[in-house]
Amino acid sequence: MPAPSSRRSGGRAARKAQRARPLPAADRPVRPGLTGGRYNPLSEADIARIHRAALDALAEIGLADAPPSGVEAMCAAGATLGDDGRLRFSRALIEDLLARPRPDLVLHARDPAHDLELRGTRVHFGTAGAAVHLVESDGRSYRDSTARDIFDAARIADRLDNIHFFQRPMVARDIADNFEMDINTLYACCAGTTKHVGISISDPAFAPGVFDFLHLLAGGEERWRARPFVSASNCFVVPPMKFATESCQTMEFCLRAGMPLLLLSAGQAGATAPAPLAGAIMQAVAECLAGLFYAEAITPGAPVIFGTWPFVSDLRTGAMSGGSGEQALMTAACAQMHRFYGLPGGAPAGFSDAKLPDMQAGWEQAMSAVMAGLSGLNLVYEAAGMHASLLGYCHESLILGDDLIGQALRCVRGIEVSDDNLSLDTMRAVCLGGPGHYLGQPQTLALMQSEYVYPALGDRSSPKEWEEQGRPDLIEQARRKKQDILSAPSAAALDPALDARIRAAFNIHLPR
Amino acid sequence: MPAPSSRRSGGRAARKAQRARPLPAADRPVRPGLTGGRYNPLSEADIARIHRAALDALAEIGLADAPPSGVEAMCAAGATLGDDGRLRFSRALIEDLLARPRPDLVLHARDPAHDLELRGTRVHFGTAGAAVHLVESDGRSYRDSTARDIFDAARIADRLDNIHFFQRPMVARDIADNFEMDINTLYACCAGTTKHVGISISDPAFAPGVFDFLHLLAGGEERWRARPFVSASNCFVVPPMKFATESCQTMEFCLRAGMPLLLLSAGQAGATAPAPLAGAIMQAVAECLAGLFYAEAITPGAPVIFGTWPFVSDLRTGAMSGGSGEQALMTAACAQMHRFYGLPGGAPAGFSDAKLPDMQAGWEQAMSAVMAGLSGLNLVYEAAGMHASLLGYCHESLILGDDLIGQALRCVRGIEVSDDNLSLDTMRAVCLGGPGHYLGQPQTLALMQSEYVYPALGDRSSPKEWEEQGRPDLIEQARRKKQDILSAPSAAALDPALDARIRAAFNIHLPR
Repeated sequence: MPAPSSRRSGGRAARKAQRARPLPAADRPVRPGLTGGRYNPLSEADIARIHRAALDALAEIGLADAPPSGVEAMCAAGATLGDDGRLRFSRALIEDLLARPRPDLVLHARDPAHDLELRGTRVHFGTAGAAVHLVESDGRSYRDSTARDIFDAARIADRLDNIHFFQRPMVARDIADNFEMDINTLYACCAGTTKHVGISISDPAFAPGVFDFLHLLAGGEERWRARPFVSASNCFVVPPMKFATESCQTMEFCLRAGMPLLLLSAGQAGATAPAPLAGAIMQAVAECLAGLFYAEAITPGAPVIFGTWPFVSDLRTGAMSGGSGEQALMTAACAQMHRFYGLPGGAPAGFSDAKLPDMQAGWEQAMSAVMAGLSGLNLVYEAAGMHASLLGYCHESLILGDDLIGQALRCVRGIEVSDDNLSLDTMRAVCLGGPGHYLGQPQTLALMQSEYVYPALGDRSSPKEWEEQGRPDLIEQARRKKQDILSAPSAAALDPALDARIRAAFNIHLPR
Repeated sequence: MPAPSSRRSGGRAARKAQRARPLPAADRPVRPGLTGGRYNPLSEADIARIHRAALDALAEIGLADAPPSGVEAMCAAGATLGDDGRLRFSRALIEDLLARPRPDLVLHARDPAHDLELRGTRVHFGTAGAAVHLVESDGRSYRDSTARDIFDAARIADRLDNIHFFQRPMVARDIADNFEMDINTLYACCAGTTKHVGISISDPAFAPGVFDFLHLLAGGEERWRARPFVSASNCFVVPPMKFATESCQTMEFCLRAGMPLLLLSAGQAGATAPAPLAGAIMQAVAECLAGLFYAEAITPGAPVIFGTWPFVSDLRTGAMSGGSGEQALMTAACAQMHRFYGLPGGAPAGFSDAKLPDMQAGWEQAMSAVMAGLSGLNLVYEAAGMHASLLGYCHESLILGDDLIGQALRCVRGIEVSDDNLSLDTMRAVCLGGPGHYLGQPQTLALMQSEYVYPALGDRSSPKEWEEQGRPDLIEQARRKKQDILSAPSAAALDPALDARIRAAFNIHLPR
């Protein structure tokens, strides 16, 4: 067994200097939208069976509880309403729906540099969730999350290269009025980051106010519609196989107002979805196909994300388990179904059951995150900062998640095999009369930054160096970075005049 | 965004009781030898190019420094010795080598229940390494590792279902004499576990003594040869492209004595191997093909494991980085090359650069471990307990690694898609006049243990339960489990009469 090579001081300064030069975004080893798809948990036959069973479920079981407006629109588009109040969709109807050409979906951002193009198996990682607790890693304590916490999370995410979008990860529990909570959540997100923002709308009655806010922020409705920089996750379904009446009304409003929607089916295997992983995936697919049909009946070409989010239950207790291997498998399989349908898709990965950013959190987050990326999932939601099976969110964990996702992205990028990379010429030069090692080779120096990802906080020091540095603690390092980010002015801050107009129109709880 | 479903007390006791029944090994959700291969970092064309380049390297560059016995054997088998002292292998020679039928390799164990069958893409996880430090997680300190530490690690591994073999993970630095170190390492491993054991032999002069020991332990040479329960990792090559003269002599001895060998090529990309991942993989493949040719020239049908172990350098410092995404990619790609050749293969994954079992350790170990499993690597070495880029080993981390690997194995097992699992019938029963949820369905109860893996120490409690339990610390839980295991009598302990015979023949440092 080889011992790691000892550190070489010769040439180290030169390498460090080379490394210090900033790389243009296009030359960085990882970036948003890398192409995944090398991991395929399902065979072609598996995919076809899941698809057929989902069509059967839609034709034979259908969905209950659509609002009257939805019943009307979907029946006009060919669905049939049974005496049992369930809407059913024939196989041909869904096949026609899937055969319709659809434009690629772009999720815009306030800063166009952060726009996300959801083609093929391009992979993007971001936050999401509805945690009700902020995890304070220093005190190992859970407290109610606030609007300020959301704002801080947005500001942190704005500074992390590998967090590609920011969907609100927690609930502003300090705001009692639900409309004000929605508006202040939106404000906290948009004032904290210029990346694409995701929200949710708690009540259909709040939707008009949300769009008033967005039009104000965008500089008018036309500008909003040209580049909608906020999407909403919409739980249009209550699994198994019932429309969520009020959320559907919100969906109709949002689609007409030009907002991209994540159509979210979040059954829990063994509780609100079948216990076998295949069945839970199939049900989520069936429900999202119904959601797509609904959206198309309201707005043809609707900008929707296929949100198959089957979760896992710990069947011993019925509680959710987000950190499990079963979750990682289901999310990766969903990405394959998205690809099969040629639809932009999103699913959850990278979240943990651990209460703190400890080793368990690391292994749970990493396993599902990398599998989601390798499977080519367009939007990996809840991918950083989430603990306690989505009940807790942690700033330090978000910061560490940036390193974790950077590593996952390196894996998504994969291995380029070319004549240059196979290095026969370099090998000849090194072995046949050469130095017998590759350290000073031009190829080695040239690839230092483009082939390799270096973690920001992940520690690679030797035990000796680590002792000399006083045995740095990972969480403490993350805490310092958090303080650095939050003590600096926000690069995403709103123009003061615009901010004043927003504050005149809405009750913004965050201080100026 | 859905909140996790609240815990249901109704039915919980029944589910807990059901869960408490032990499962027969064959019904467990995960086990040794699950079939991987759903993740393929390389395309077919990539594989062919790597193979062709490796053949070119062997034909044109060849390997230096073979011992005279090796030169003689390999030249007799068709290799040519150049004026530059390098042995070269024509493309046809290697193609003939690869075309030869080879028996499947079984790694035997002292307890046959732990035998490992290395067919196809069957996946097994185990330890390995040559750490020089024992990481004491409570004091966050590194100290020299000892024979006792190896014995304790073996006893712990013996009790962990997801550690399938035990290769010595660290060096007995308390034993000054190198022969006694080898013998005591072997003793510590075999007295601690009845699983397959891996060792290494530091000097060809020690090999006869090692086999004296093994014959004694096995009950005679014949019994040893019938079921060789110890393999050795053999660093037969000093990358790039030089035979390790002394290790080659050890290899020849071991093969003639019937010992399975891991033929290990451990170049470091950017230092002793090309910096591009593709080149580092190609060089490792070329070197291992030379090793296989050598082994076959000594003992046709030799029981060897194709040990492509390309490591990663952090090019900023030249130090090794085991926890990187680049490492995970290279190991997974190597598994594909093993499959391409139809050879049993081993490579490293699941080790960390982190100094302690913290969140970084979790994400680094998990990412490479699951990718190795999904790629169908037969033997995943260094897969638990390894820190500081292989310089440190930690008992608590080994224990937590059992949970981590259990989850990775669940991912390897994948998703079974069948009519039963697609659950249309259950869905009909639940949705059409049924309870509207799956909690009490016979299918759900039946799958509780066979479809889902439950972590031993991974915490899935709610924040409320966690507070009530006094906020348990993951590492502290692992420490308690370590103490429980080490305070109980060893199930693998040697028969006292045999132990006495061994102690009469060898200087065993561990007390009786």
